[in-house]
Amino acid sequence: MPSSKVTLVDGMQFVGVSGSGHAVVMDADQKNGGANSGARPMEFLLTGFGGCTGMDVISILRKKRQKVTSFEIFVEGEKAEGHPARYTKIHLEYVVTGKNISPEAVERAIKLSLDKYCSVGATLGKSAEISHEFRIIDSEAEAGG
Amino acid sequence: MPSSKVTLVDGMQFVGVSGSGHAVVMDADQKNGGANSGARPMEFLLTGFGGCTGMDVISILRKKRQKVTSFEIFVEGEKAEGHPARYTKIHLEYVVTGKNISPEAVERAIKLSLDKYCSVGATLGKSAEISHEFRIIDSEAEAGG
Repeated sequence: MPSSKVTLVDGMQFVGVSGSGHAVVMDADQKNGGANSGARPMEFLLTGFGGCTGMDVISILRKKRQKVTSFEIFVEGEKAEGHPARYTKIHLEYVVTGKNISPEAVERAIKLSLDKYCSVGATLGKSAEISHEFRIIDSEAEAGG
Repeated sequence: MPSSKVTLVDGMQFVGVSGSGHAVVMDADQKNGGANSGARPMEFLLTGFGGCTGMDVISILRKKRQKVTSFEIFVEGEKAEGHPARYTKIHLEYVVTGKNISPEAVERAIKLSLDKYCSVGATLGKSAEISHEFRIIDSEAEAGG
C-alpha cells in the first residue's frame, strides 16, 4: 500500500518520506509564512504526473525501438478560484528528442499512458481536464545545425 | 500557474523541477526497470497531501496558540485493481505532540483543512474517499515518563 510520512521541521517546512524510503522537502513561500526551502505540495502533483506518464512513454518507445536521446515533459496546472483551489485543468507537453522518431509511435505511447497505464493521471483526471501535445526534435538535424 | 518540468535522466529515473525551483528525483523499482533511486510518482501525491494539510493544520493551531512541539502526518493510499490504478481511498493520521493540546482545536483544524483549504485534498478527493484520525501526545507526560 503506498504511503508517506510527513514531519514538520520548522516554520512551514515539512519533510516527507515515502514508503519507498525517499525524502523530499516541502515549504510554503514567504507570503504564506514559509521560507521557500522546498516545493509547494500542489507542485508535487504535477511533478508526479510528469514522472508517471514519462515512465510509461519511455518504456513504450524503447519497446518500439525508438532511439530517444532525451525526453522532457512540461506540466502546467490550472486551479479553481477560491478555496480549496483544486486542479481543474492540467496540460502536458512531451518533448522527445532522437533519431527518426515516429510521431505515430509517440502519439500512441502517450495515449496508452493517459488512457490506460498512468495511475497518477487517472487520479488527477477525476478533478482536472487533462490535455496534451508533443514535439519531436530530430537529434541529427540538431547536431547538424 | 503551478508547473513542473520533468526530465529523463537514465533508465527510469526522472528529475522534476517545479516552478518554484526545487528538484526531486523519481524512479521506478527494480521490478519495473528502475533502480529505486527516488520515490515513485504515486507516492508524491500522498506526500503532497500530507504537506498541504500539514501546513493548514499547523497554521491554524499556531493561531489558536496551541503549543505544538512536534507534528507528523501518516498518509496511506489504496489503489484500484488493474490499470490504471488510481487512488480510491486515502487515510490520514495526524499525530500532534505538545503541551495541553486541545482535541477540539485539532479536530477543527483538520476539518477546516480537509473541507475548505487544502487544494491537494480537494483534487485527490475527486478520485479517493478521504478519511482521517488523529492522536495527541502530551509532551509533559512524555518527558515525565
